[in-house]
Amino acid sequence: MSLVVVGSMAFDAIETPFGKSDKIIGGAGTYIAWCASNFTPVKQISVVGGDFPQEELDQLTARGVDLAGVQIKKEEKTFFWSGRYHMDMNSRDTLETQLNVLENFEPVVPESFQDCEFLMLGNLVPAVQRSVIEQLKTRPKLIVMDTMNFWMEIMMDELKKTLGMVDLLMVNDSEARQLSGEYSLVKAAAAIMKMGPKYLIIKKGEHGALLFHENKVFFAPALPLEEVFDPTGAGDTFAGGFIGHIARTKDISFENMKTAIIVGSAMASYCVEKFGTQRLREISKEDIANRIDEFVQLVNFDIDLVG
Amino acid sequence: MSLVVVGSMAFDAIETPFGKSDKIIGGAGTYIAWCASNFTPVKQISVVGGDFPQEELDQLTARGVDLAGVQIKKEEKTFFWSGRYHMDMNSRDTLETQLNVLENFEPVVPESFQDCEFLMLGNLVPAVQRSVIEQLKTRPKLIVMDTMNFWMEIMMDELKKTLGMVDLLMVNDSEARQLSGEYSLVKAAAAIMKMGPKYLIIKKGEHGALLFHENKVFFAPALPLEEVFDPTGAGDTFAGGFIGHIARTKDISFENMKTAIIVGSAMASYCVEKFGTQRLREISKEDIANRIDEFVQLVNFDIDLVG
Repeated sequence: MSLVVVGSMAFDAIETPFGKSDKIIGGAGTYIAWCASNFTPVKQISVVGGDFPQEELDQLTARGVDLAGVQIKKEEKTFFWSGRYHMDMNSRDTLETQLNVLENFEPVVPESFQDCEFLMLGNLVPAVQRSVIEQLKTRPKLIVMDTMNFWMEIMMDELKKTLGMVDLLMVNDSEARQLSGEYSLVKAAAAIMKMGPKYLIIKKGEHGALLFHENKVFFAPALPLEEVFDPTGAGDTFAGGFIGHIARTKDISFENMKTAIIVGSAMASYCVEKFGTQRLREISKEDIANRIDEFVQLVNFDIDLVG
Repeated sequence: MSLVVVGSMAFDAIETPFGKSDKIIGGAGTYIAWCASNFTPVKQISVVGGDFPQEELDQLTARGVDLAGVQIKKEEKTFFWSGRYHMDMNSRDTLETQLNVLENFEPVVPESFQDCEFLMLGNLVPAVQRSVIEQLKTRPKLIVMDTMNFWMEIMMDELKKTLGMVDLLMVNDSEARQLSGEYSLVKAAAAIMKMGPKYLIIKKGEHGALLFHENKVFFAPALPLEEVFDPTGAGDTFAGGFIGHIARTKDISFENMKTAIIVGSAMASYCVEKFGTQRLREISKEDIANRIDEFVQLVNFDIDLVG
């Protein structure tokens, strides 16, 4: 049984108030794979062009990422995105998008991926996400979907079709509001869970994340950081930590999802410390355990109540 | 030994996107007293005019609020504020402010308040807050100060003088940034703790609150609410719950402050459910215990880590 990840592998060029990157490795699928492979083997579905570095593919393979589902289109170019973050590091402008290989991406699930127990659909065209679900002969134990406001604006119906097939949706607070038409996140969550997913995670950036299921809610903080250097990929890394923990423990209870959110938050807090995936390449299992312990300290309290 | 509270007792008129109140009872001191008196007796320092209802004073007395420090200026009028909240319920416009009795308020600490062990300085002119500290013959075990951006804009030096005499400051995130000149809340906290207070609470409204002390930090969530009906007094109520718990337990350790923040957050979550102090007048000790339990559930998780 295995974890299958679907998502873009790309080049990014990033500008922040603190600096500017070269054209570096990016993409939702890349961040998820670098992160989740700390916890469990990963089977990756994606597409890259002939310009994508073999060295990057080799490094992922060495980490336990099975690339049998990654199409390499030698004659084409890899997806490219460039953006500039504003001073608050929460909002950004897209400077350039070159879809390239993503334009006509038709994912193919290899036979060796049919043992998929946990499926992580990174942010991508909703129909592409759905195609992967439909190709799987046995329904995974848990299907997690990430998406973004862009798809809500140009293909809401497509997005809702995919949404109806997944168990858990991850979006940020403004996306939850856009998708539901509700300002209150509690009401937004109730509305979204009627669209299909039984679980919903609302990410609030520096303000943490909420997990909803039926009438239960769990809140996980974000670590207060001195500096956010580059927020690119933080959401994907969160997803990678979440699904990585779930796949490692093979436990999809609400209780274990709480822990998975803490793991995801800890990983995301590392991601933003340097440009791109750089920090994710450096950290050890000990670093991860230490950071998770910081989260435990951050929220840990004893209640000695009103007498 | 006792808890002394300093703060305005006032009339408010409030408009929100959901409704409009008559001229109702308000003021930082009022909210703090209604809230803290759930946990411990309160000795109140304030000033009201001849138009302030005796019934309100009687109700406070019945709850264990000692009004020996409340001046009643029969010939003058009570402080009046009216404001209108925007759709997001976080920002508001002041429509009218009539200082009235607050204009020349000179607080007098009664002899019977000299046993003050815990001092809560509600948001007020910094010099008035300082005058109370200076009148106390024995320094309290803990002095907590609330303030607001208004004083930073018109009398920052005065504010800093008072700040240098207190143990714990409570402000919201934008006030912390304004006071310190730092955008990162971690850096803002470090800068503010150099101005005097050894402890700092940064309130982030619907995003919870952070407690800083030396190199330690604790994060408390806010309860995700379906509806915020009227945010007026939420910060004062938080302060009342915090200091009420501290005064009841007589324990100023960092660990106990964490619990006090949860208590404050629980009380504030009740406050916003109805106009003004209405909800605070209704809730029972059982309601409070139930709400605090919801907070425990909200953040409670077990860590089963990377093997």
